[in-house]
Amino acid sequence: MDFPPLAVSLGDPAGVGPELIAAAWAAREAEALPPFFVAGGADVLRSAAQSRGIAMPVIEIFHPAEALALFDHSLPVLAGADGEFTPGKPDRSGSKLALASLTEATELARTGEAAALVTSPIAKARLAEVGFDHPGQTEFVAAACSFAPGDAVMMLAGPQLRTVPLTVHVALKDVPGLITPALIERKARIVASALYRDFGIASPRLAVAALNPHAGEDGRMGREDLDIVGPAVAALGDEGIAITGPHSADGLFTAHTRESYDVALCMYHDQALIPLKTLDFDSGVNVTLGLPIVRTSPDHGTAFGIAGQNRADPGAMIAAIRMAGECAARRMGLLDD
Amino acid sequence: MDFPPLAVSLGDPAGVGPELIAAAWAAREAEALPPFFVAGGADVLRSAAQSRGIAMPVIEIFHPAEALALFDHSLPVLAGADGEFTPGKPDRSGSKLALASLTEATELARTGEAAALVTSPIAKARLAEVGFDHPGQTEFVAAACSFAPGDAVMMLAGPQLRTVPLTVHVALKDVPGLITPALIERKARIVASALYRDFGIASPRLAVAALNPHAGEDGRMGREDLDIVGPAVAALGDEGIAITGPHSADGLFTAHTRESYDVALCMYHDQALIPLKTLDFDSGVNVTLGLPIVRTSPDHGTAFGIAGQNRADPGAMIAAIRMAGECAARRMGLLDD
Repeated sequence: MDFPPLAVSLGDPAGVGPELIAAAWAAREAEALPPFFVAGGADVLRSAAQSRGIAMPVIEIFHPAEALALFDHSLPVLAGADGEFTPGKPDRSGSKLALASLTEATELARTGEAAALVTSPIAKARLAEVGFDHPGQTEFVAAACSFAPGDAVMMLAGPQLRTVPLTVHVALKDVPGLITPALIERKARIVASALYRDFGIASPRLAVAALNPHAGEDGRMGREDLDIVGPAVAALGDEGIAITGPHSADGLFTAHTRESYDVALCMYHDQALIPLKTLDFDSGVNVTLGLPIVRTSPDHGTAFGIAGQNRADPGAMIAAIRMAGECAARRMGLLDD
Repeated sequence: MDFPPLAVSLGDPAGVGPELIAAAWAAREAEALPPFFVAGGADVLRSAAQSRGIAMPVIEIFHPAEALALFDHSLPVLAGADGEFTPGKPDRSGSKLALASLTEATELARTGEAAALVTSPIAKARLAEVGFDHPGQTEFVAAACSFAPGDAVMMLAGPQLRTVPLTVHVALKDVPGLITPALIERKARIVASALYRDFGIASPRLAVAALNPHAGEDGRMGREDLDIVGPAVAALGDEGIAITGPHSADGLFTAHTRESYDVALCMYHDQALIPLKTLDFDSGVNVTLGLPIVRTSPDHGTAFGIAGQNRADPGAMIAAIRMAGECAARRMGLLDD
């Protein structure tokens, strides 16, 4: 059996998604990217390529498998929803197109016609106006797989660091109340399994960041690290997972300390995202762990402010496509590590 | 008038402080460090130099001014408290020595006999057992200057980034309640003044990090950034301070974004310390702004685990001594920028 192509969603047509897809396609040989197709938006992609000066023939296809033979000399795009949009000027019909593309790409990954799903940036608040009722694409994909939102774990992966935020899009004041042994244990197990299955790390080493500064200094600055995080880490260690912590978060991301683990589990969004973006801003990948399908995404937004200006860096999109291909190949037993 | 020498406190004699002082003295010519003396601990410093293979004559002095003529060929140490200690084995008498040294060095900076104060690492919990009743050395120094703790602002400065944590050693759950317009405005004014007076930055640019992820996304993930941080930033801007924010914290520390400001004001300890240590682990300086005296410190702890093993990196101590000398010289009008 041939390795199926990857499905890439268009993202918001007024954002940087389409032009980054074109830039990634242009780099397909240099970056040794696996074949991919885009779910809809052929005209959008033609305009995007033009705006970046990329000579990219767009060929409409009717089945994902057609992409394999076409990918070398053209971008295969599933015939379907499309339109004309102005970069930097998002509108309601663009949100509908983004949602249609995401829905179709996800479905094709779910059925196996696509080897994996790569999602381009959307504006969540705008998609919510046209019926998207999930906190983010991660939860949408989980639901499409009939999984609970908590079964999908978001990992951020850059060349120098992998982090997992245990809580994500919640106010900081709500974070301490959400950190429970059950949450830590459930997500840590998913992460450990995924690093083995999808990333080929035989014995993944997990490091857990503390919630409080200095890990609470024996309870003088908050008791959660003593009462909740520590016992959860101990329980996971007893299961045979290579896990340490809670570690003072400020010292956990130095070059020296990063060598001691494969992934850092963080308590909240900024604790996970600050070090990742500080180190690997232009190449961070958001990868969803724990689902039946492999899904990655560039770790940045729609960047409406620079869309259409040939300024957006395609590094994260390229990294997301490469990682999706590698993870899918490992799941299918096609990669030796 | 001669530029007075800097006063350096010994730090915990079982920690890495004494050996880093010796290593900094050994680098005095290569690093062009200003003359300094240590407050007490002559025998401790002799042992520390020996443990690192540094040929460092220690000469006991009775007045700071004597240090100037001696510094080139020896380390001047104020005669006084001393003792024998085992690296890595802190004890009560070591804590007493550390406190005595800190007290004396601070007093000499306060009277002007020393140009500035450089404090070496202490173990706060251990010092508390011998009568130290401040959250940290910053607050101790503020009290010695008869200033309220809130008038002293901790800034972390590395080669690539400066950050100020608006709240410091408190549990994460207590942070949102502590963020008020008054706190932000008071500290921002101190920071803006100090960057001008002590760092020679004519029009310092301040960037304020948001409390919540994505700056709360218009209130959907916490209202503090809308209701508290934003108005405080606007008020400060109306005063003529060059200040922006609240910015999503995860994107604030990329190489590109760092070029847009001179200092980032952060809402809590880890938000300020994670990017600083991720970028500049071995050279971060903790500098106290807003006090009548200049005070710096290497931004690391006692590191008992590696003390006496010639493993501790003196980069931060060297940077702290250099910065203290430069800030003091600027205050005295001896440096043109």
